[in-house]
Amino acid sequence: MIVVLKPNVGQEKKDRLIEWLKGMGLGVHISEGEYQTVLGLIGDTAKVDMELIDSLDIVDSVKRVSETFKCCNRKFHPDDTVVNIGDVKVGGGNFVLIAGPCSVENEDQIVSVAKDVKAAGANLLRGGAFKPRTSPYDFQGLKGEGIELLKIARKETGLPIVTEIMSIDDLPLFEDIDVLQVGARNMQNFDLLKELGQTGKPILLKRGLANTLKELLMSAEYIMASGNENINLCERGIRTYSDYLRNTLDLAAVPMLHELSHLPVIVDPSHATGIARMVPPMAMAATAAGADGLIIEVHNDPPHALCDGAQSLRPEEYAELVKKIKAVREVL
Amino acid sequence: MIVVLKPNVGQEKKDRLIEWLKGMGLGVHISEGEYQTVLGLIGDTAKVDMELIDSLDIVDSVKRVSETFKCCNRKFHPDDTVVNIGDVKVGGGNFVLIAGPCSVENEDQIVSVAKDVKAAGANLLRGGAFKPRTSPYDFQGLKGEGIELLKIARKETGLPIVTEIMSIDDLPLFEDIDVLQVGARNMQNFDLLKELGQTGKPILLKRGLANTLKELLMSAEYIMASGNENINLCERGIRTYSDYLRNTLDLAAVPMLHELSHLPVIVDPSHATGIARMVPPMAMAATAAGADGLIIEVHNDPPHALCDGAQSLRPEEYAELVKKIKAVREVL
Amino acid sequence: MIVVLKPNVGQEKKDRLIEWLKGMGLGVHISEGEYQTVLGLIGDTAKVDMELIDSLDIVDSVKRVSETFKCCNRKFHPDDTVVNIGDVKVGGGNFVLIAGPCSVENEDQIVSVAKDVKAAGANLLRGGAFKPRTSPYDFQGLKGEGIELLKIARKETGLPIVTEIMSIDDLPLFEDIDVLQVGARNMQNFDLLKELGQTGKPILLKRGLANTLKELLMSAEYIMASGNENINLCERGIRTYSDYLRNTLDLAAVPMLHELSHLPVIVDPSHATGIARMVPPMAMAATAAGADGLIIEVHNDPPHALCDGAQSLRPEEYAELVKKIKAVREVL
Amino acid sequence: MIVVLKPNVGQEKKDRLIEWLKGMGLGVHISEGEYQTVLGLIGDTAKVDMELIDSLDIVDSVKRVSETFKCCNRKFHPDDTVVNIGDVKVGGGNFVLIAGPCSVENEDQIVSVAKDVKAAGANLLRGGAFKPRTSPYDFQGLKGEGIELLKIARKETGLPIVTEIMSIDDLPLFEDIDVLQVGARNMQNFDLLKELGQTGKPILLKRGLANTLKELLMSAEYIMASGNENINLCERGIRTYSDYLRNTLDLAAVPMLHELSHLPVIVDPSHATGIARMVPPMAMAATAAGADGLIIEVHNDPPHALCDGAQSLRPEEYAELVKKIKAVREVL
Repeated sequence: MIVVLKPNVGQEKKDRLIEWLKGMGLGVHISEGEYQTVLGLIGDTAKVDMELIDSLDIVDSVKRVSETFKCCNRKFHPDDTVVNIGDVKVGGGNFVLIAGPCSVENEDQIVSVAKDVKAAGANLLRGGAFKPRTSPYDFQGLKGEGIELLKIARKETGLPIVTEIMSIDDLPLFEDIDVLQVGARNMQNFDLLKELGQTGKPILLKRGLANTLKELLMSAEYIMASGNENINLCERGIRTYSDYLRNTLDLAAVPMLHELSHLPVIVDPSHATGIARMVPPMAMAATAAGADGLIIEVHNDPPHALCDGAQSLRPEEYAELVKKIKAVREVL
Repeated sequence: MIVVLKPNVGQEKKDRLIEWLKGMGLGVHISEGEYQTVLGLIGDTAKVDMELIDSLDIVDSVKRVSETFKCCNRKFHPDDTVVNIGDVKVGGGNFVLIAGPCSVENEDQIVSVAKDVKAAGANLLRGGAFKPRTSPYDFQGLKGEGIELLKIARKETGLPIVTEIMSIDDLPLFEDIDVLQVGARNMQNFDLLKELGQTGKPILLKRGLANTLKELLMSAEYIMASGNENINLCERGIRTYSDYLRNTLDLAAVPMLHELSHLPVIVDPSHATGIARMVPPMAMAATAAGADGLIIEVHNDPPHALCDGAQSLRPEEYAELVKKIKAVREVL
Repeated sequence: MIVVLKPNVGQEKKDRLIEWLKGMGLGVHISEGEYQTVLGLIGDTAKVDMELIDSLDIVDSVKRVSETFKCCNRKFHPDDTVVNIGDVKVGGGNFVLIAGPCSVENEDQIVSVAKDVKAAGANLLRGGAFKPRTSPYDFQGLKGEGIELLKIARKETGLPIVTEIMSIDDLPLFEDIDVLQVGARNMQNFDLLKELGQTGKPILLKRGLANTLKELLMSAEYIMASGNENINLCERGIRTYSDYLRNTLDLAAVPMLHELSHLPVIVDPSHATGIARMVPPMAMAATAAGADGLIIEVHNDPPHALCDGAQSLRPEEYAELVKKIKAVREVL
Repeated sequence: MIVVLKPNVGQEKKDRLIEWLKGMGLGVHISEGEYQTVLGLIGDTAKVDMELIDSLDIVDSVKRVSETFKCCNRKFHPDDTVVNIGDVKVGGGNFVLIAGPCSVENEDQIVSVAKDVKAAGANLLRGGAFKPRTSPYDFQGLKGEGIELLKIARKETGLPIVTEIMSIDDLPLFEDIDVLQVGARNMQNFDLLKELGQTGKPILLKRGLANTLKELLMSAEYIMASGNENINLCERGIRTYSDYLRNTLDLAAVPMLHELSHLPVIVDPSHATGIARMVPPMAMAATAAGADGLIIEVHNDPPHALCDGAQSLRPEEYAELVKKIKAVREVL
């Protein structure tokens, strides 16, 4: 860690700061410049509160030389992580297709969509049982009943299932679930992350609404530091001042996360754009950017289907998209 | 709700949409314009999924006429809510001063700061026992022990206490706490909000990192719809591309939230700026903008004090600031 | 245009508003709801100041039914525009590869890079002669001399040239330039846009730092309303709170701009990411998203080349990338 | 400037980089750490392209130790700048009240408003003659005629005038104008800034839509480096994802700009919020935050006045606000 002091700092203040830093067990390397003094801190600087030092009145700025994320850092783990979900592998060259409806509605719906997406080439079935909604008056999901319906669909198709968990207290219901999804709003629900770290189960960790890549990696770090390395990162669009689209899909996050970390990166073009018509071009783009998989909403609900509705694709649209995605994969 | 259709939509598609809307129990008022058709939906449109309709291929745009928040809406509750915390009142002309250290560290520290801020004029004591941290390797708070130390400080000074709750599972530890704070990262932890709705306890609900005012009000709505009306909203800065400050303090949120809602609005200038030197001008500005209170970090930790450290004020700086704040209050 | 009034507005105020609207030559269709009154405005609402009406104390909200952009609107011009630059066509299925150095430095450099990118398959040569720089102390470009060097490179290779214009006063220097680029910082320099509208020359209009798609289209509208229809829109990344990348490349803008407008859309992955290693995956992604072309920085400057420098690719990296881009194009 | 190299960089690459840096006339101080090498660059690093070095493949990160802004930097000019506009002083404890209509409409209007705001206590008259509008179809201002009307209002009241300049070519029309305003969209129109640097006239430099404080100061630096030190910075709200307000007024910019620079800082609460009802609380807050002045829209247009319209205050509202602002000033 490098600490740059302000110009013209008195020697006494400087000495007190250095003494205090040494008191934390750090080595301090002092470099006096023409105008400014620069301190190099050596030792276990991960424990040092960078913001505190940065805000001291004699400090101009602080810079960390080594990243604070360790377990998920590619520097310390150069090979790609491959996450195993039943027979399905994600990462390290293995591409995964996750598909299914936004919400589980009833047995017919989920089994029918599951069969359709399997036929189209999907490897995993997604479906929401617990739904985070901005309004308390909106549909909150079938909860436990939805979980049971997902298991029926798995039995019928053999597809492992991915579904969102919102609270530690619901964990017992998820015992037989294949992949536990952490939604954008819970990316920094640290108690939930720690608990998931102890399950050992594959996790799909979605990037928060307005979180940086470093924050996403630090949240993965919470899970990994608790003992679970089976993490799939997920880019699903971030909040900006966009006018025609719900969120801004940050596809450059894919190669950048691959450079920073060894974890697989999955892209969700459905939530990112909120418009079914935009899903195919963004799914293609995500594939070309090097994503390790795609999670896409597909439904067969007639009133929706009538109108080409919402952010979900119809099964036949999804099947067509999968063919194009595979063609792009071959180019890579 | 108003639904604007795209130009040149076929009659058949239009009819199917209208039929589907009527099937949800809504009245549909059709207005054919020169170029476009506009549908006015009448009835309980709060249940209608606006995003779904907006994304239909024949729909140009959708506009809600009535807000989806009810309980916290000033339209339906014109008078200011006054939240009672022991003898302390917040809102409706009652101004509250909340102060204390970022983290509870030990008995001496919390009791000493509590006495200092009380002497300076503070009405409530704040102090973190459970600390949400971006990194799993950073100090996570004294937890249950911190809660006990806060109670000692309350006993010594008579100041009611405010402290953050991060998980439903910790609720029993907070039984004797006066105000439960929901942090920015948990603003949309809906399970926690529902549970807090059942406690009846005063809540300090912080605005999330990048949440809109409507989302903040919808989160208040979760608590109120569960039966608890004792909510203090809190503006603490939002994430932008700011270069010299940690967050961007959105002070116009104060009069706008007052217009939209009857709940009191408290401002946190410490977290918003992250720099102690910026806290006094922003505290003054928040007061002048009409805030119902201020939550400010104050510590007496010598190594910090030596260097004018971090985002916390020293007790004597806080005392001086309180005098100025009171002078601004008199002008209003 | 639809104007929703607040509940409980007095009849007198309502009448005055309606009278005032009619005074502007608009038809007003009044629809009284259970709680609120909605006014439908008919006629030439493009002239109506939506923000003014929205801010009236009796108005709840305002919604435009028809877009304010006309010339560049696909609704009124369903076929793709094809921009002709010498023999090169852009849009309507024609893909363009623009490449060259950030700045023109000297004759050897620009001629050498021009030959290299032509050999790799580029159709147009880019190079900065006038450089907008945040700091007055940074290199501002070779200006007129740079323009002359670009012409030499064109003569040597036959590649038409694209270069940025920053000021109306420089227009005479650009008389013999093939494509005039408007940089992100000048996207709303309306005097410049109007002037360019009178040149008839092909324009490359870059999206501003934090501008919406509607604002980009309105800036194209300035040029088109002045008589020039040869516009290429360009997405080059927008400002967010991104931590590891300079800007956030908004690739969903590509299909959305295609839906809204008939103008071609080019993507600049070099400025968007600021890092050469990120350019190939983002160039691939932009192609897969349906872009009509790519503008990419390529240099052959030895000190840079030594270190794999900056946001520019080396000629051999560019040649390799072009092969992959063409393979992705074939999939589409 | 500090350059941190990546771990495990080969000696040959390291040597080439150091040689190249020395070739630019810089001293290079090498510090080998346990894991990483850190280079300290000494000399005229203002000329060094930080982004280029940051993007080299062997470089982990780069940090500037000294700011790139010099003329406007408080470090090199500790005393507040006082800008003189006729007899009016701004900065260094002198508070200025600028008021007037958004657009100059006709002689009656501008003279009447000028008299009203003067009576209320305003020191300067503002009024738009050249209007930057997002749409080419919106009213673009009375231009030269508007300038003449402003001069008449000045003659009638003695108030110096502030009005926006959009293009270098219009400069002759502004010869007799007291303060030249640079609008948000032109903050990085560097050719215009350089030209204004040669006029010596007082400038009101508005912060761009999404610009950082450093970029604002670098734009001031363009003007100062060209020889004009009479600059008033202006915070007018930045673009975020705000839902109920047009922009987000960043009031913490006021004390931060005062810390970084010696230039006066004026706040525009009218454009920041876009809603007249929000102007008084934000004007009060800006004053309490330590602003050196306020620029506020005031009109007397009957149809507006009828409805409490737009972002402009009526003269009597402005007069009442000025009294409160003066009371807050006395507290400070």
